[in-house]
Amino acid sequence: MEELSFAVDCMGGDYAPSEIVKGCVLAQKDLGYKIYLVGDEVRINPILKKLGEFNNPDLHVIHAPQTIAMDEPPSAVLKKKESSLYTAGKLVRRGEADGLISAGNTGAVLAVGKFVVGAEEEIERPAIAVALPNPRGKTVLIDVGTNVDSKPKHLLQFAVIGHTYAQEILGVKNPRVGLLSIGEEEGKGNELVKETYPLLKQTRLNFLGNAEGTDIYAGTFDVIVCDGFVGNVILKASESLGLAVVSMIKEEIKKSLLARVGAVFLLPALNRFRKKADFTEYGGIPLLGARKPVIITHGKANAKAIRNAIGVAGDFLTKDFNRKLVENIRMLIPQEAKI
Amino acid sequence: MEELSFAVDCMGGDYAPSEIVKGCVLAQKDLGYKIYLVGDEVRINPILKKLGEFNNPDLHVIHAPQTIAMDEPPSAVLKKKESSLYTAGKLVRRGEADGLISAGNTGAVLAVGKFVVGAEEEIERPAIAVALPNPRGKTVLIDVGTNVDSKPKHLLQFAVIGHTYAQEILGVKNPRVGLLSIGEEEGKGNELVKETYPLLKQTRLNFLGNAEGTDIYAGTFDVIVCDGFVGNVILKASESLGLAVVSMIKEEIKKSLLARVGAVFLLPALNRFRKKADFTEYGGIPLLGARKPVIITHGKANAKAIRNAIGVAGDFLTKDFNRKLVENIRMLIPQEAKI
Repeated sequence: MEELSFAVDCMGGDYAPSEIVKGCVLAQKDLGYKIYLVGDEVRINPILKKLGEFNNPDLHVIHAPQTIAMDEPPSAVLKKKESSLYTAGKLVRRGEADGLISAGNTGAVLAVGKFVVGAEEEIERPAIAVALPNPRGKTVLIDVGTNVDSKPKHLLQFAVIGHTYAQEILGVKNPRVGLLSIGEEEGKGNELVKETYPLLKQTRLNFLGNAEGTDIYAGTFDVIVCDGFVGNVILKASESLGLAVVSMIKEEIKKSLLARVGAVFLLPALNRFRKKADFTEYGGIPLLGARKPVIITHGKANAKAIRNAIGVAGDFLTKDFNRKLVENIRMLIPQEAKI
Repeated sequence: MEELSFAVDCMGGDYAPSEIVKGCVLAQKDLGYKIYLVGDEVRINPILKKLGEFNNPDLHVIHAPQTIAMDEPPSAVLKKKESSLYTAGKLVRRGEADGLISAGNTGAVLAVGKFVVGAEEEIERPAIAVALPNPRGKTVLIDVGTNVDSKPKHLLQFAVIGHTYAQEILGVKNPRVGLLSIGEEEGKGNELVKETYPLLKQTRLNFLGNAEGTDIYAGTFDVIVCDGFVGNVILKASESLGLAVVSMIKEEIKKSLLARVGAVFLLPALNRFRKKADFTEYGGIPLLGARKPVIITHGKANAKAIRNAIGVAGDFLTKDFNRKLVENIRMLIPQEAKI
C-alpha cells in the first residue's frame, strides 16, 4: 500500500489548534502517515516550530482562513468553503488525502462527510456507530445521529454496516445483531421496528431478534440497530447520566471524612474505569459508509485522542473496510429483503 | 375525605406474595388505609397470620386463583379475568377500591390500567412518567413506554400531564418543560418533534424549547416530553448503564488491595447515592391519566417499596391530582393547538 495521508481539521475542538497539531505530530511519528494540517497557518506554524517539526516533510500545512463555530448549523457550513473543515473535506474528495479527522462541530463534520466526501457505492445513508463499553466488551450502537425518520431499508443497511464494523474493526467474529425495541418478541415495538424485523430475519446476519434498552450496556449483543433520533438521545442521555452519577457520588463523599479517605485509595481504579468507558480513548466515532474514513472525535479531544483517531482512520484503510462493507451489503441482504 | 382503600396485586413481583403482603400491612399501619390484598388466599392468609394481622379489619383478602407470569403478553392478561391483577383492576373499576398497586409484569399492569381501570375524561392516552434523579433534583420523563408512534396531539397531552405531575405531586413551581430532540433549535429533530414544537409554543406551559439527551440527567428541565418508544429505551438503557458501571468499577477495585480498602470506606456514601438514584424508593411509576391511581413498582419491590407505592397512590387522591389534570388539559392547551 502507498503511503497513507490524512487531512486533519486543526481549528475544530475545544483545544484547537495546539492539541490538534500535537496529535498530528504524534500520529506522523508513531504511525508514519503523511498529515495535512488544515487551518490558519498563522496559528499552526508557530506550534510546529515550537515542536521542532516545522520542516518535517510529512507534515503539510494547508491554509484555510475560515473557522466553524461549535454552534453553526450544518447548512451554513456547506457554504463556508474556505473553512478548515470544508477544505479538509475537499482534499479527501479530490483524492489528495485518504481520510478526514475533526474534533469540531459534530453536525458540521457529518455534513462535510456526507456531502463533500460523499457516500460509498451501495450505501444509501452513511451512519454513525459508537462502540459502547459493557462488562464483557463493546456493543456497537448504530445509527446515533445522522439519520432521523429512517425507513426499514435504512435500518437494514445500518445492520450490515454495524456488522462489518464489529467484525472488521473491532475483531468480533459473527457479531450478534439486535434490533432496538421495547419488548423481546417479534411484533413488539413501533411501526418501524415491526416492519424491519421480518427483513432482518431474511438476511444472512446473525440476527438474534429484538434488543431492549437494558441490552445496550449488558453485553448481550455486539451490534444494536436503531433510528438515528433514538440512538442520539440514548448516547447523550448516557453521557449525561455518567456525569450526574459522578457529581452525585462526589456530593455524598464530601459529607464524610471516611468516604473522602476511601475515595483517595479508589482513585486509580476509578481512573482505569473511566479510561475504559471513554470512547475518545478509542479514537472517536466513525461515519461509516462514507467513501473514505471520516472520524469525529470528542470536542475535548487532546493530542493523544487525535493521534488515536488518525490511527483508526488508518485502520479502516489497511483493513480494507469499505470493500468488505460493499461486499457485505451485496452478500448479506438477499434480493427479497431489498425494498 | 372518606377512608381510602387500595387494591394490591399480591401475586406480582419477584418477592410475591410475602414482601407484598408485608408492604400492605406497613401501609395500613403507617397510613391508615384500607387494603384489599388480592391473590391466592392459601398463600396470603398464612403470611397475615404470621404477622399477627389476620384479624385486622382493614386488611381484606380477596381470593383470585390465577397468576400472571412476568413474560405473559398484555393481550393474554385481559383474558385472564380470575388473575390477581385483573381482579384488583375490577375492584377499582367498580369503585370498591380507590387505586391499584402492582409489582408484576409491567405490560400487564398497564393493560389493566388502561382497559380495566380506564382513562380519565379529556385524556386520550394515559402515559407513564418517571422522575429521574439529577444533581439538583428530579426530571420527569414522559412517556416511558405505553404509547409508541405517538402523534403531536399526544405529546401535547403528555406535556400537560408531566407538568401537572411535577407541580402537584413533586411540588415543582412552574415546571420547565422541554421537548426531547437531537438539537436545541426549533426545526431540529424528527417529523414528530418538528410538528409538536409549534403546538407546545401555543400552550400556557412554561415551554423552554427542545431538550437534548444530555438534559435528561442535568437538571436543566423539570419535564421532558417524548414518544413512549424513545422514553422506554432511554429508561432501560439508563438502568443497564448503571448496572454496567457498578460491575466495571467492582472489577477494577478487585485488581488492587488499596482500592478494596478505599471501597469499604466509601460504602456508606455509595449507598446513599444508590438510594437517591433508586426510583423504587419513591414508590414506583404512576400511570398518569388513568381514572384512578395505578402504580407500577419495580419487580424487585420489597415491603418498603410497596408501602411507599401505596403512599404515592394516596397522595394522588389527597392532592386531587385528576381534577387538576383535567382542569390543566382544558386551561393550558388553547383551542387553536387542539388538532
